[in-house]
Parts: sequence; C-alpha cells; structure tokens
Amino acid sequence: MREKGILIVVSGFSGSGKGTIMKELLKQYDNYALSISATTRNPRPGEKDGREYFFKTVEAFEKMIAKEELIEYARYVDNYYGTPRAYVEEQLDAGKDVILEIEIQGALKVKEKFPDTLLLFVTPPSAEELKNRLVGRGTETMDVIEFRMKRAKEEALEMDRYDYLIVNDDLQECVEEMHQIIQGEHRRSFRNAEFIEHMKEELKGE
Amino acid sequence: MREKGILIVVSGFSGSGKGTIMKELLKQYDNYALSISATTRNPRPGEKDGREYFFKTVEAFEKMIAKEELIEYARYVDNYYGTPRAYVEEQLDAGKDVILEIEIQGALKVKEKFPDTLLLFVTPPSAEELKNRLVGRGTETMDVIEFRMKRAKEEALEMDRYDYLIVNDDLQECVEEMHQIIQGEHRRSFRNAEFIEHMKEELKGE
Repeated sequence: MREKGILIVVSGFSGSGKGTIMKELLKQYDNYALSISATTRNPRPGEKDGREYFFKTVEAFEKMIAKEELIEYARYVDNYYGTPRAYVEEQLDAGKDVILEIEIQGALKVKEKFPDTLLLFVTPPSAEELKNRLVGRGTETMDVIEFRMKRAKEEALEMDRYDYLIVNDDLQECVEEMHQIIQGEHRRSFRNAEFIEHMKEELKGE
Repeated sequence: MREKGILIVVSGFSGSGKGTIMKELLKQYDNYALSISATTRNPRPGEKDGREYFFKTVEAFEKMIAKEELIEYARYVDNYYGTPRAYVEEQLDAGKDVILEIEIQGALKVKEKFPDTLLLFVTPPSAEELKNRLVGRGTETMDVIEFRMKRAKEEALEMDRYDYLIVNDDLQECVEEMHQIIQGEHRRSFRNAEFIEHMKEELKGE
C-alpha cells in the first residue's frame, strides 16, 4: 500500500526543542529525509555546504526563483532562504517522508501549493515552560528572550492551522509520537486513492 | 492535554476481520469502550441483554427515537437497530475513546451529527482475499457469499468518505495500527482547541 512519501512541515516556537526531536527522529528511523534549505547568507564556522545549507550567491538564488526550483522561499534581513524542489521530489518518489523544518509563513505557503502536506507544530507544555527553557539555556541575552517570546505570541495565533500539535514534555516520547502520527497519516483515505480505486475495480467484477 | 474521549466509528466489509480486531483492541488497551447497540430483534441463544445488545420492544425503541435517545438508528428486515446516546456520552466524558461498530450509512449519519467523529474502515488487502476469507470460513452458503460480495461492491463506493483505511493483513499489526492512529488523533489541533486558547492567553501576558 505504501508508495510515495509524505511531505511534512515541522514548525514550532524557538525553544520548543524541535531541532533535537528532528535529529533523534532521523537517527532512530530510516524512512525520513530532512530537506536542506538553500540560503544566500554566509556560512558560519563549522557549517558545510550541502549539510547545514546549500550556500548560494544572490544571483544563483534568484535564478532558482525564476526557474521555480524552490518550493517556498522568503527573505529575512537581506538574506534569502528557500527549499529546493528537486531533492524533495526525488526523496518523495523514493518513498521517503520528507521533513522541512521551516517557520509558519513558509509552512502555510507549502500547504497552499501542496495541499497533502502534513503540518506539525511542536510546542512546550506551557508558555511558562517555554520561557524557562529560553532562560535556562543561559546563552541568550534577555533582549533575545523577549524577542523570541514576542514572536511566540504571534506564532501562537496560527497554531490551529497545523494538523497536529506535538507537546514536547519528554524527548523520547515526542520522537515516538511524531513517528506514529506520520505512520498513521500513511493510512489516511485520501493518501490511498489508488488502493481504493483498485478495490472498486476488483469488486466490479463480482 | 488529554480530556474528552474521541467518538470512533469502525466499519468494514463483512469478512474484513473487524470484529476480531475490536475484540483484541479492547482486550489489550483499557482506554476504549465499545458501544452496545439497542435492537428490537429477538435474542439468539447465548446472547445476553446488555452484552451483545440491549434488547427492546418496538414500543420502547420508538420511545427512544422520539426522545432523541439514539445517536443513529436504522431499520433492517422489520427490526430496529440503534446506538443509545447516554452510554456513549458518559464514556466520552470519562475520557474513554468510544467505538461504534456500525455499517456505512449509520457511520455517515453519526459523522453528520458529530463532525469530530473519527471514521475508520477495515479492509482486506484485496477483493480476492476478501472472497477467499468468506469462502474459507466454510460456514456460509455460496448465496450468502455472493450477497456479501455484492454488498462489498456497494460499500467500496463510500470507502473514501472514511478518515483512515486499515488494511487487515496481520491481526496484531492491525490492532497496533488502529491504536496508534487513534492515539495520534488525540494530537490533532482541532481536538486541542482549549490547549491552544490557553497558550495564546498565556503568551498575551508577554
């Protein structure tokens, strides 16, 4: 019954732990592929082209836009970020479930273009917990924490446009839950139109 | 986050094995409750009131209809069959996921009345396999088998109105799959409107 993979967008508040969940999910299961974004920003020390990002010049990136080689893209603070289409389609065709880790506006654009996209939103159990985690990291200034909380406030307004909420209380439980939700989605009727058609055809003969 | 239970309708071709799956699901997990139908047909030997069915007189059943005490009901071959509302609501309020095992027309009526109902359809992997199972039982005449295959043909036309398809290839896998699909459904955004509202409220203070 399994054929094409599912396109999955994972978003979540900064501090929700979604990055760690993704890393574990990919480590524990081999049916997922993580999409790598293209960007025009400069690589930071330790970042490698084709691993963290595909690093592009502005000209190369704008050519990708013109040729519709990006599923979605956005511009933040003078830099482009986008999702290259080729890798995603290749992996979906190979039966992999492809995960894009992008923010809300990008997520909604992808869903508009590909209505079968599965939208997952990762959230801590409460706003208090979110703040505690951001403070607890000890790596951010209070300014940055305030900025992230303000952004979380805006993002919360769109939470209900996601298909599922994943409450990150315990890392391993969360990884399991995400895996099971995605596996369950493979059984959705609308994702199995071919099976249904085939069953109808077979039964016609009766 | 877990509060009210989910109302679940399980349908499937005669011979799909849905009865066995239900029995195992209820045996292995304690968060499910199986709704018991009311009927005006006579009890068969070994059937007990309140276990297989609630056995009612026609007068009592029609009173239940008049008082809207049934979620859905239908009449087959001079007998009424229906789903009593009280038990279902009581179990949902207690946080149990309540399963109704009813046929397609009833399922669609329930979904119309309660749009959050989860519709699951159990099917063998192919029409050939369905026929093999019906023949293999050895308990049915060819007439009955023909009748069931004709009915399957009609039922297949409505398969895509169900939320999920569960392909019954292996009993234990099927039970696990059904359990995971239902658990995953608890994470749907629309089933967690209160959590989302609360998160928005909390973040407003930031």
